[in-house]
Amino acid sequence: MEAHADAEYDCAFLKDVIDDGRVEFTESVREQYAVDASPHDGRTPDAVVWPASAEEVAAVLSEANDRGIPITPWSGGSGLEGNAIPSAGGIVLTTAEMTRIDVSPDDLHATVGAGVVYDDLNEHLAQYGLRFAPGISSGDVATIGGMVATNASGFNAVRYGETRNHVRRLEVVTADGRIVECGRDVVKTSAGYSLKDLIIGSEGTLGVVTEVTVGLVGIPEHRRAALVTFPSRTAASSAVSDAIGSALVPGAIEFMDTMSMKMFNAYHDDLEFEERPTLLIELHANNDGIEEDLEFTKLICEDHGMTSWTAAGEDDIDDIWQARRDKYWATQSYREEWEVALVGDVVVPISRYPEIVQEVSDAGDDLDLVVSCVGHAGDGNLHFTPLVDPDDEEMVDRAHDLNERVVTKALELGGSATGEHGIGLGKRKFMAAEHGVALELMRSIKATLDPNGILNPGKVLPEQTDR
Amino acid sequence: MEAHADAEYDCAFLKDVIDDGRVEFTESVREQYAVDASPHDGRTPDAVVWPASAEEVAAVLSEANDRGIPITPWSGGSGLEGNAIPSAGGIVLTTAEMTRIDVSPDDLHATVGAGVVYDDLNEHLAQYGLRFAPGISSGDVATIGGMVATNASGFNAVRYGETRNHVRRLEVVTADGRIVECGRDVVKTSAGYSLKDLIIGSEGTLGVVTEVTVGLVGIPEHRRAALVTFPSRTAASSAVSDAIGSALVPGAIEFMDTMSMKMFNAYHDDLEFEERPTLLIELHANNDGIEEDLEFTKLICEDHGMTSWTAAGEDDIDDIWQARRDKYWATQSYREEWEVALVGDVVVPISRYPEIVQEVSDAGDDLDLVVSCVGHAGDGNLHFTPLVDPDDEEMVDRAHDLNERVVTKALELGGSATGEHGIGLGKRKFMAAEHGVALELMRSIKATLDPNGILNPGKVLPEQTDR
Repeated sequence: MEAHADAEYDCAFLKDVIDDGRVEFTESVREQYAVDASPHDGRTPDAVVWPASAEEVAAVLSEANDRGIPITPWSGGSGLEGNAIPSAGGIVLTTAEMTRIDVSPDDLHATVGAGVVYDDLNEHLAQYGLRFAPGISSGDVATIGGMVATNASGFNAVRYGETRNHVRRLEVVTADGRIVECGRDVVKTSAGYSLKDLIIGSEGTLGVVTEVTVGLVGIPEHRRAALVTFPSRTAASSAVSDAIGSALVPGAIEFMDTMSMKMFNAYHDDLEFEERPTLLIELHANNDGIEEDLEFTKLICEDHGMTSWTAAGEDDIDDIWQARRDKYWATQSYREEWEVALVGDVVVPISRYPEIVQEVSDAGDDLDLVVSCVGHAGDGNLHFTPLVDPDDEEMVDRAHDLNERVVTKALELGGSATGEHGIGLGKRKFMAAEHGVALELMRSIKATLDPNGILNPGKVLPEQTDR
Repeated sequence: MEAHADAEYDCAFLKDVIDDGRVEFTESVREQYAVDASPHDGRTPDAVVWPASAEEVAAVLSEANDRGIPITPWSGGSGLEGNAIPSAGGIVLTTAEMTRIDVSPDDLHATVGAGVVYDDLNEHLAQYGLRFAPGISSGDVATIGGMVATNASGFNAVRYGETRNHVRRLEVVTADGRIVECGRDVVKTSAGYSLKDLIIGSEGTLGVVTEVTVGLVGIPEHRRAALVTFPSRTAASSAVSDAIGSALVPGAIEFMDTMSMKMFNAYHDDLEFEERPTLLIELHANNDGIEEDLEFTKLICEDHGMTSWTAAGEDDIDDIWQARRDKYWATQSYREEWEVALVGDVVVPISRYPEIVQEVSDAGDDLDLVVSCVGHAGDGNLHFTPLVDPDDEEMVDRAHDLNERVVTKALELGGSATGEHGIGLGKRKFMAAEHGVALELMRSIKATLDPNGILNPGKVLPEQTDR
């Protein structure tokens, strides 16, 4: 996590386009934006700016574009692949001042500033019985703009989909400072090229998102959850692919391996989970049919030899999810002075889920690493977290070898190098293998929309020499 | 529907790249591809070609690109905005030979050739208890490739979404003949720019889709439907926005005005619907909770003063939907020698649905036209169909005035010029009003991906002079 502090770009022009209190050049402030939540190397930017409107963003971008100064948009900074690290220096542009929330409950949508925090939005929406549904672990920090940038998703995507599925309209500022409305406030449209969908997942490399209209769903009237243990990771992961293949649509279906359960128990004094491969299954419904679905789910788990089924009451559910949300910290604190080397994130076709789970386990054994696994299993999404002694360079290298091996296997199985964390810095090396010729088209589009290459340089697209 | 037959481009090269039986230069064959299902003016292409693989499509495109010969992709030809009319001449490239269906039931997806017909796919999928869900009227003709081209949807989009929401991966051939895999066979990914989503809805102007992996849903175990009449169109359309605003997720909720009900009765000897504003509501579920939802739906309709509620049995449902599917023909035959002037297609935020329904009625009265209305109301999508004497030019003009007025109103209400039919030829004039600056970006992307402008020229983007 070392940061290079060499100031490189003269950003004094910012004082002419943004009010005094919302531009910072002091090193102590700049340093706070050198690293994000990822373990990637940071870099101190030359300036930090807090524009309060699309017009102000446009003014900053237009001037920066003329001067060739890099702009790295910053939302929550909770990205796990270095997505928000200003690795080329220049300006960090934060969205923190853009926090308007405007709910249209009858339309089941809300128009929100890019800087609105996920949990804050859902807290605000509760009064309407509505929520923004993707369900992410870092909801207390991650913003809607950042979720759009990486097409984030999480626990509930198996039922409600990715961020992409919920975005109706984006306000975006281009590299040269044009303010663009992408899409309309409607649930469907066939009116030309979906620029909105091109921007979603582009991690601020094609434009800066300033405002988002998101579709909402009703808070389900009924929730039922069960914690189910299995004799093996294969049994657990096979139960998942069976449940999804039978067209069950759970609210969430989360896989946690034995090591993860151990870590939860060690981290939380008040928890005592069985230390076995486990599924946390949650069902959502607005009617009593939920009991029938729960019975059906139990039958599938029995078919796969479940060793225990613990129905969770309404109160317990949130505690169990909180334990799952704290997984990163539970891992981080599991061995004194050891650290999480990286948070793996792959996705495969659901029928191949047992294979990718097995691959992580085999690779961990082969490379002699402490690895724990969790995953939004209903999506085919798996996270894995090697824990290393940061002073043991050779061990850190082995953790990166593990990542490489698992991602390569995911691609072989027809999957993708990232289910929800994005490419950032860390996954660029897999872009050519995953996309082939499509990568050429991505480069053409980048060159068209950001000809001077000022937008979040060094992210998403690998250097040309890396191919 | 007059067609210009002037051969313009020398397409003899096709004989060198595609087998003899799959290239046609005879006028009688070429004329079959001069017009699509829309009322737009046609044009006879110079050649028609039936490539059987992405490689063959690439060979055709590469040669045509070098020669600057227009290529118009042709799927079902069921488009209603002239989307598939070869209006610049050149080559019609049909997808009819690309009809492979490869189902992976455990992954809930199917990989299909672009030429697979929607109904054929769903017939094939029935053995697995699965379906491709968007639900379109012209499913007996429309192909999956064509649905991707216009981001088609229909009756069931209120529950299952547009075509976009179900596409996992596209195989696309670029203007210069590169074969590109866009996306992976997974339910979610955050790996770079979503070229797949850029291609969806681009109507063959950015690339030719040759293969599609679509996500599938389980055929619901239970369906319940009701035909509900109301004292006024306002009452009916308000019931829709109320139902959706209360977070009910019906399988379909279709609005039909009094004139439409009259047309159904006139067209079908065996039907005798009440001639009032009507909703056809269908619920889908895999458990008994459906009865509770049906009661809730009935309560909402009662709140809006429903005049009758007729529960439809499993058998009746399909008959009623068939009547709805035949709406175009029922309209066409309603007055001897009169014709459908156009099929309107707008979408608005659901809370504004009553206003757009009223606007069509007011405009019909003001312009003294026979207009009928139906709509996938749960999406805010409305279709309207002025019936005219084709020999009365002034009346035809009034029908186009009506379209202009309703689209303009939809845009004012925050809606879009097309919910599902696409832009084609007919809606280009609204692109600037709907998209503003975004249209400039669309032009840049078109110029990048199709620099010689050979792909479906004259569609989607208005002529520069039209702005």
